[in-house]
Amino acid sequence: MKKQKITIHDISKALKIDSSTVSRALNDSSRVSLKTKQKILDKAEELGYQRNILASNLRTNKTNTIGVIVPRISRSFFSSVISGIEDTAQNSGYNVIICQSFESFEREKKIMNTLLSNRVDGVLISISMQTTSFDYLKPYLDYGGPIVFYDRPCSFENCSSISVNDYKASYTVTEHLIQSGCKNIVHFAGPQIIDLYKNRKQGYVDAIINNGLEFKESYCFESKLAEEDGVAFAKKIISMENIDGVYSSNDTAAIGAMQYLKFMGVKIPEDIAVAGFNNDPISSVIEPGLTTINQPDFEMGKIAANMLIEQIKNETTNKESKVLDVELIIRNSSQKN
Amino acid sequence: MKKQKITIHDISKALKIDSSTVSRALNDSSRVSLKTKQKILDKAEELGYQRNILASNLRTNKTNTIGVIVPRISRSFFSSVISGIEDTAQNSGYNVIICQSFESFEREKKIMNTLLSNRVDGVLISISMQTTSFDYLKPYLDYGGPIVFYDRPCSFENCSSISVNDYKASYTVTEHLIQSGCKNIVHFAGPQIIDLYKNRKQGYVDAIINNGLEFKESYCFESKLAEEDGVAFAKKIISMENIDGVYSSNDTAAIGAMQYLKFMGVKIPEDIAVAGFNNDPISSVIEPGLTTINQPDFEMGKIAANMLIEQIKNETTNKESKVLDVELIIRNSSQKN
Repeated sequence: MKKQKITIHDISKALKIDSSTVSRALNDSSRVSLKTKQKILDKAEELGYQRNILASNLRTNKTNTIGVIVPRISRSFFSSVISGIEDTAQNSGYNVIICQSFESFEREKKIMNTLLSNRVDGVLISISMQTTSFDYLKPYLDYGGPIVFYDRPCSFENCSSISVNDYKASYTVTEHLIQSGCKNIVHFAGPQIIDLYKNRKQGYVDAIINNGLEFKESYCFESKLAEEDGVAFAKKIISMENIDGVYSSNDTAAIGAMQYLKFMGVKIPEDIAVAGFNNDPISSVIEPGLTTINQPDFEMGKIAANMLIEQIKNETTNKESKVLDVELIIRNSSQKN
Repeated sequence: MKKQKITIHDISKALKIDSSTVSRALNDSSRVSLKTKQKILDKAEELGYQRNILASNLRTNKTNTIGVIVPRISRSFFSSVISGIEDTAQNSGYNVIICQSFESFEREKKIMNTLLSNRVDGVLISISMQTTSFDYLKPYLDYGGPIVFYDRPCSFENCSSISVNDYKASYTVTEHLIQSGCKNIVHFAGPQIIDLYKNRKQGYVDAIINNGLEFKESYCFESKLAEEDGVAFAKKIISMENIDGVYSSNDTAAIGAMQYLKFMGVKIPEDIAVAGFNNDPISSVIEPGLTTINQPDFEMGKIAANMLIEQIKNETTNKESKVLDVELIIRNSSQKN
């Protein structure tokens, strides 16, 4: 005889407890008292009850999984943030699945669909450089899942965000270059549709003006900040002749520029001082060492995951914006004197 | 009046076509002719049929999603492999979800459970440094999902694998160090429970012996090849006095060693020549440039994804082992003469 499959209703009948309470207890809901929960779990074990995970997801919408959308895992800043996320998630009993947008809005939209189909309990997202509209997030929010923006903050509905003080960081590093003797500093800016890069540019602009130098829009080069962009900008800088400083919105482009400048015999920092942003591992290996901004990336991941898990557990969305401070790391690439 | 939800059975009834055929057509199965499929899709649209994706997954087991298990996304080799995987997956209409094991067997097992719950169509896995038993993969294989091992090949049931010729690569780089004048070469070996690192060590051993040098087990240092391991080994090397060459199983540890040796005033390559493995971006930035092995990482990802998608589409498991060739990149760190 084929063994009959034990259902929630069998447990309910055996204990004379409502089946919805049994279901909640088996899904570890806080709405059932510990005593009742224990009684139900004991009976479930006694009867040989086995959960059907996928069917259970349909009912309870709990998968203990967090989805992370990241522009590119190959950027060391993002992989450190994700390490922080995984650290907190692991300690709280959540699994993490990671999806890359490759800075494409189309892929970001597809990923959101996948995460919704997979019924992840919450989503951490750093939007792509192309993303300007957020309506694609609505189905997930309607479904009841919380979303937290990390690194690239956005103001959208009830979503929280965590980022660093990009304006202040930029102001500080630009002022450092000025104090080191630079008078004509170019800025490698990221895409200005992203708040983060806008804030970094503004910090640069204000530091230039407040320190009595002349701000020139022609000194700002906008790009996606790939290494090749840094190389292309370095070529431009050499043709400009009077440039004595570079502040790049990331280390990747700064290092591309440094490699080309060194190759062309330009002395760093004597001829041109250079500073970056991110404190990538490579910034301490290149010679001279690259002055840069150290972001609390691992910490940011931990806090972002905590904010999200809090919302998942409380079934509330609690809009808040956290801004973390950064640290200027001075190395030889910027010290003219 | 509440609108009645349209089901597969309504379409079946309206067209007098078997409901299992309707279901197959709606899931784009190749077992239904294009003509019938179009008829069914038209009727579905006419009636206002809406698929319940999650319930549909329960029936058809197709999610168009591939799961990738990776030891660490922060290693540039792995992030390039994943870029290759995503490139192929994207072109074939598959989404990719990435999970990190952090080289932990426990996490790897949990991830497999998550991927099974999410009903991914196939899994690409590079096993953790702790993994020696593969029984945890059985439930997923029983479920019918194909698995392909990449980079760290394993012989397990019907699973395919793709890797590079580690033995040959190691032999080549060790012989290059000998030809460059090294007589006492130490080897930074990875965990010997992993075939890949065993093969790399064997290539080193054979090159030493076949070139008339004496192989000494005391010249082999085993570790997880983190940067700190490289630093620790460099300290050891300095105390050994007669060492004139280092061959590290990855660039990360090689660079840790180079940084410490340079700091201690050891001249590279004059006093000690160094070679690594992986061609990480950092290997061309450090001075002197690090001689290393370039693996076709992006290519490996593309081929691995192709092997997997082929199996998903054909619903067959076809055990095959592909081995890719590598390239020796000679930079200044190894050229004594």
